[in-house]
Amino acid sequence: MKHVVEIKVRGYHLDLYGHINNARYLEFLEEGRWSFIEEYIDIDKWRKRGWFFVAVNININYRKPAFLGEILEIHTKSPQLGNNSAIFHQKIVLKGTDKIIVDADITFVIMDPDSRKTLPLRGELREAFKKMS
Amino acid sequence: MKHVVEIKVRGYHLDLYGHINNARYLEFLEEGRWSFIEEYIDIDKWRKRGWFFVAVNININYRKPAFLGEILEIHTKSPQLGNNSAIFHQKIVLKGTDKIIVDADITFVIMDPDSRKTLPLRGELREAFKKMS
Amino acid sequence: MKHVVEIKVRGYHLDLYGHINNARYLEFLEEGRWSFIEEYIDIDKWRKRGWFFVAVNININYRKPAFLGEILEIHTKSPQLGNNSAIFHQKIVLKGTDKIIVDADITFVIMDPDSRKTLPLRGELREAFKKMS
Amino acid sequence: MKHVVEIKVRGYHLDLYGHINNARYLEFLEEGRWSFIEEYIDIDKWRKRGWFFVAVNININYRKPAFLGEILEIHTKSPQLGNNSAIFHQKIVLKGTDKIIVDADITFVIMDPDSRKTLPLRGELREAFKKMS
Repeated sequence: MKHVVEIKVRGYHLDLYGHINNARYLEFLEEGRWSFIEEYIDIDKWRKRGWFFVAVNININYRKPAFLGEILEIHTKSPQLGNNSAIFHQKIVLKGTDKIIVDADITFVIMDPDSRKTLPLRGELREAFKKMS
Repeated sequence: MKHVVEIKVRGYHLDLYGHINNARYLEFLEEGRWSFIEEYIDIDKWRKRGWFFVAVNININYRKPAFLGEILEIHTKSPQLGNNSAIFHQKIVLKGTDKIIVDADITFVIMDPDSRKTLPLRGELREAFKKMS
Repeated sequence: MKHVVEIKVRGYHLDLYGHINNARYLEFLEEGRWSFIEEYIDIDKWRKRGWFFVAVNININYRKPAFLGEILEIHTKSPQLGNNSAIFHQKIVLKGTDKIIVDADITFVIMDPDSRKTLPLRGELREAFKKMS
Repeated sequence: MKHVVEIKVRGYHLDLYGHINNARYLEFLEEGRWSFIEEYIDIDKWRKRGWFFVAVNININYRKPAFLGEILEIHTKSPQLGNNSAIFHQKIVLKGTDKIIVDADITFVIMDPDSRKTLPLRGELREAFKKMS
C-alpha cells in the first residue's frame, strides 16, 4: 500500500540558494507518515494504550533540489515490520514526473513514554500494524 | 534590568533573499526571554506550582535585514507588570552598532495549563516577578 | 474577497503543553497569504519586475489553543491598501466552528531587493494589487 | 581535530512528549558544522569561488531523549575526505556525561550552485579542506 500527500514549495521553505533546508524535508516526511498512519489506526486510542512512535534512525538521501512553486509528492509505503522495530520507506517526487528529490528510510519503535520501554511488535500491536499493510 | 544573548546568523536561518524568516525571529526572541527568565526564577518550581508563561499578543517590527555571518544581540528588558498580564519589551540589534533589526512587545499571562485559567499577577506570583525587575 | 486554506495539527507542530508554538503560527499565516496571492498574481513576473513582499510589522493575538488532530482554517482577506504599505487581515479558525484561535494583521511593503527601496503602491503596481480585491 | 558547541534545551525545541523534534536535531548539527567550518575556512571567499557545501546524505541515530533545561554538546570532527565527497561525523552528548543523545554521519559534496556541478576534492579545494584536519 502506498500513500501520497502533496506540498507546494513556498519561499519560507527555501534557503539562500533557493533550496529546501535539510531539516524541513524531515517535516515533509513526517507529514507524509502521519497522513498515512491516521488513515489506518486510531491515534487517540494508541496514545491511551501507551503506544507511541519514536524514530530511532533516519537515513535520508538528498538527490535533487526543489524550487519555488513546485509541487512535491510525499510517498509513504506500508511499514516493513521487524520484531522490535519497523521501517517506513518514503520518497519525495516532483509532481507529474518520476524525478526523485529525496528518499529516506525511517526506522522507528513503539515506546511507552512513561516507562520508556520499547514494545515488541507482536500480539495486539502487530495486528494493529497489519491494518497499514 | 536588561539581558543580552548573542546569536550568529547562519545559512539555515535565511530565506531566498538572504533574509531571516519572520518566524525565525520569534524563536530568537523566545531564546532571549528564557535566557533572561531562568536567571531570576526557578522554572522547575514554577512548573510544579502550575505557573506557565503563555503569550497572548506579539507585536513585532521588522526594521532592517540581517545577513549571513552577522552577530545579533537579543535585548530583553524586565517585564512591565499589569494586573493580569505583563509585557516583555525586546529588540534585536546588530552587534557593535545601534542598528535595530527587530523590536517587539510580547504580552503574556501566567496560566495554569490544567484549568486554563489566567492567574492575577499578585501575592506570591507578583513577588516572584519582582525578582526580574 | 476571502481565501481559506486548511492545515491539520500534527505532533511536530506542538510544544510540551500540547500547544502550537508561536513561531509555527506565523508559518501557517504565511502559507495562507501565499495561497491567496498566487491565485491573483503571477509571482514569477513580480519577481522579474523586482517586486517583493516584505513584512514590516506583524501584530498577532493568540486567543485559544489548538490541539492534536484538529483542522485549522487559515482565513486571509484582500489586502487593505495604503500609499506605501498594505495590510493583510488574517485569522485562524477551528474548522466547523466560529472559534478564533489566532488573528493577526500583517503590514507589508513592496520592495526592490537590490536597491532595498520601498515602492509606492501606485500605477501599475496598484493595478496589480486590485486583482486581489 | 574536534569542535564543540553548546545548546541549551528550551521549551520551543520540545514536542508533546518533552522530546526534541527530529528535524530540530538537524539544525543543532548544522550549527555545530558551521561553527567548526568557519574557524578554518573563509566562507565568503569560498562563496565567491563558487564552492558551496551541499548535503547528499544524512544518517542519524536518535539514541536517548534530551529534556528541558539540559545542556547539549554538539561534537563535530574533521571531515573524512573522499575523492568527490566527504563525511562529517557528529554526535550530541549530554554535557558533563558521556551519554550520547544523537550521532550522525553527514555526507556532503562541494557544488557550484550555478552549474550544479559537483567539484572533485583535489588541488586547491583539497588544500583548503586540509586546514580543517
